[in-house]
Amino acid sequence: MAVNLTTPNPAELLPVAGVRLGVAEAGIRKADRRDLTVIELAAGSRAAGVFTQNRFCAAPVQVCRAHLTTGGIRALVINTGVANAGTGEAGLASAHETCEAVAAKLGIGAEQVLPFSTGVILEPLPVSRLVAGLPRAIADLRADGWFDAAHAIMTTDTLAKAVSRQVQIGGRTVTLTGISKGAGMIRPNMATMLGFLACDAAVSQPLLQALVKEAADLSFNSITVDGDTSTNDSFILIATGQAGNAEIVEVASADYAALRDAVVEVSIALAQAIVRDGEGATKFMSIAVEGGRDRDECRKVAYAVGHSPLVKTAFFASDPNLGRILAAIGYAGIDDLDVSRLRVWLGNPQESVLVAEYGGRAASYREEAGARIMKHAELTVRIDLARGDAAATVWTCDFSYDYVKINADYRS
Amino acid sequence: MAVNLTTPNPAELLPVAGVRLGVAEAGIRKADRRDLTVIELAAGSRAAGVFTQNRFCAAPVQVCRAHLTTGGIRALVINTGVANAGTGEAGLASAHETCEAVAAKLGIGAEQVLPFSTGVILEPLPVSRLVAGLPRAIADLRADGWFDAAHAIMTTDTLAKAVSRQVQIGGRTVTLTGISKGAGMIRPNMATMLGFLACDAAVSQPLLQALVKEAADLSFNSITVDGDTSTNDSFILIATGQAGNAEIVEVASADYAALRDAVVEVSIALAQAIVRDGEGATKFMSIAVEGGRDRDECRKVAYAVGHSPLVKTAFFASDPNLGRILAAIGYAGIDDLDVSRLRVWLGNPQESVLVAEYGGRAASYREEAGARIMKHAELTVRIDLARGDAAATVWTCDFSYDYVKINADYRS
Repeated sequence: MAVNLTTPNPAELLPVAGVRLGVAEAGIRKADRRDLTVIELAAGSRAAGVFTQNRFCAAPVQVCRAHLTTGGIRALVINTGVANAGTGEAGLASAHETCEAVAAKLGIGAEQVLPFSTGVILEPLPVSRLVAGLPRAIADLRADGWFDAAHAIMTTDTLAKAVSRQVQIGGRTVTLTGISKGAGMIRPNMATMLGFLACDAAVSQPLLQALVKEAADLSFNSITVDGDTSTNDSFILIATGQAGNAEIVEVASADYAALRDAVVEVSIALAQAIVRDGEGATKFMSIAVEGGRDRDECRKVAYAVGHSPLVKTAFFASDPNLGRILAAIGYAGIDDLDVSRLRVWLGNPQESVLVAEYGGRAASYREEAGARIMKHAELTVRIDLARGDAAATVWTCDFSYDYVKINADYRS
Repeated sequence: MAVNLTTPNPAELLPVAGVRLGVAEAGIRKADRRDLTVIELAAGSRAAGVFTQNRFCAAPVQVCRAHLTTGGIRALVINTGVANAGTGEAGLASAHETCEAVAAKLGIGAEQVLPFSTGVILEPLPVSRLVAGLPRAIADLRADGWFDAAHAIMTTDTLAKAVSRQVQIGGRTVTLTGISKGAGMIRPNMATMLGFLACDAAVSQPLLQALVKEAADLSFNSITVDGDTSTNDSFILIATGQAGNAEIVEVASADYAALRDAVVEVSIALAQAIVRDGEGATKFMSIAVEGGRDRDECRKVAYAVGHSPLVKTAFFASDPNLGRILAAIGYAGIDDLDVSRLRVWLGNPQESVLVAEYGGRAASYREEAGARIMKHAELTVRIDLARGDAAATVWTCDFSYDYVKINADYRS
């Protein structure tokens, strides 16, 4: 029951020069499903990543962080079924063994491999089955492997998530293709949001590093389904440098701005796809906060509204329950918020109405208007704090019977 | 479906010398239900309170704060049905009008009255109906009115909540009786947790002030159902001074310690009753965190676990899902937490087992033990952070289909 999300069209997923992808059935946790993906990068590619802030970060996340400091990344290996999280020293050894096996088969160094795992926590990674599956995944490597890879990294996602864009940079066509997985930060034990975005632009390592942080902040770090943060969340940005553009080295350049806009656009589409496929989601909600003193306080307010089970169940019921929205704004943690100045609008793609001002319901607001707007599956709560120029948007979904059903019934 | 909570026994609710309570049907929002309560305090009584931190605090909360600064409180007036929150200047005027009407009838000053409202937000308080009901509530004033008052302050609570205790202080018997309402911080629009605790001890105003804060911190501020904070939450501690004990003026005295322990005990019982009657609750969960550097970080961890919808749905399913608990601890916001040192136990009143250590599942843990423990309705998650001497406990309930049903179906 994903909200306005469909399976990607394979014909619209564009190969990225310098990137080949292969998948295999390795039987990591269940038989007869593709659960192993290898992404090979041409020599000269650059990679940068951002990872979960969870203190229980998984073994592969620790290895990724270490390997990214040396650079020269040439391959990514992703398994589903087991997250290799909460697995202590043995888990770290398994992640290293995985990298060594990939490196040996591709003739590169183990430190040039980034490992990713997603699936149940607290279970040992069956590394021998993973290694046994590698030759098949590597034999499958091809430039048009994005569609299959988008499926092979799924756990309990209901739909694969993949997006391509092209943009002109320095007179050259730069192609970006990305895939993501996750049904809202989390799925039961099947935790984890993963995002992989590759482009063929030439861009310096420091700019790539800055760009992955900015793009993650505006996309994957601006979504929430239930406030739970996984142990394995990872977002990797790859630039193979094969588009032929002059290497982008200046932040203050038109080329960087063009690349930045394209990367952010694809990242947001991949992140929103996770919310649209959120557990039990029937509504896609944008919480847009403006007029804040800084971005941080706008995010605080947006997350307070986006996390509130009361707001989310009201949206599930298509109930324009203003009291719940105002209460969430009120406890967001802005101590000197002047509630008499703030204004709130409810909207959908067709219309938007002012619902609250002067610390209460707007005089012009009619319940019928609220009820009409709430019938749509795409909803916006716009909040003007009226105390500054900063803004931030958070995307989330509603909270339905199915959320409880999925998370209570599921037993891995 | 409250968890181990029953209607109070009227015979066990003890009158407190100097306190009389009366209720009436005022038709605030619905006919044929008691929705108006007046609590009269003898001259010389002292009162202290703590209130919601929500920036959208209700009009009566603002009036209470102002009236408590002048002292000499002689009456409390509580209405259900309408919260008088998000009502702007008109709401403030209604709260003042309520106080003036009570004052005129009791021959006291309006600033000696504390008003409380609970019910739907964003609706105007029908102050004329409230005032018209006052003579009947005042005619009903009696020392044994606690049981009826506990019922009259309910909104969508399924059970009334009231507790009495007696304690010896300075050779005199001090009686404490308290009532509370709330089905977990919140009920749909029927937001609000209210707690009123009266004793007949003689205690100085500064100590009473300190005691209400400490008791709230250890009770009402240590519970959560869904993380939402109401606009009207209030907890009032009253001391009528009629027990005949020498006035308690020293924190470092046996008398203060005895009063403190009794007040905290009653406050915790009243607060836990709210969780036990939590929306859709089937399990009562204690999240006990120890070994923290300070109480604040212990509370952070306890609330992260207690708020996690993934943990709460797992408990609903009686699923000892350790991965979800560890993940919640990991994202609680302690940046330098060493997960390899922390230990986690799952328990019920009969037994407790170590389930996690060294960053993963405890070697001695068996799924059967976890499943056996989880079958109980009273569960404890004990977490040792192993980095200090501080501790904190938070009480919460599980997250069931009925929570969504109650909050999605409800339309005020």
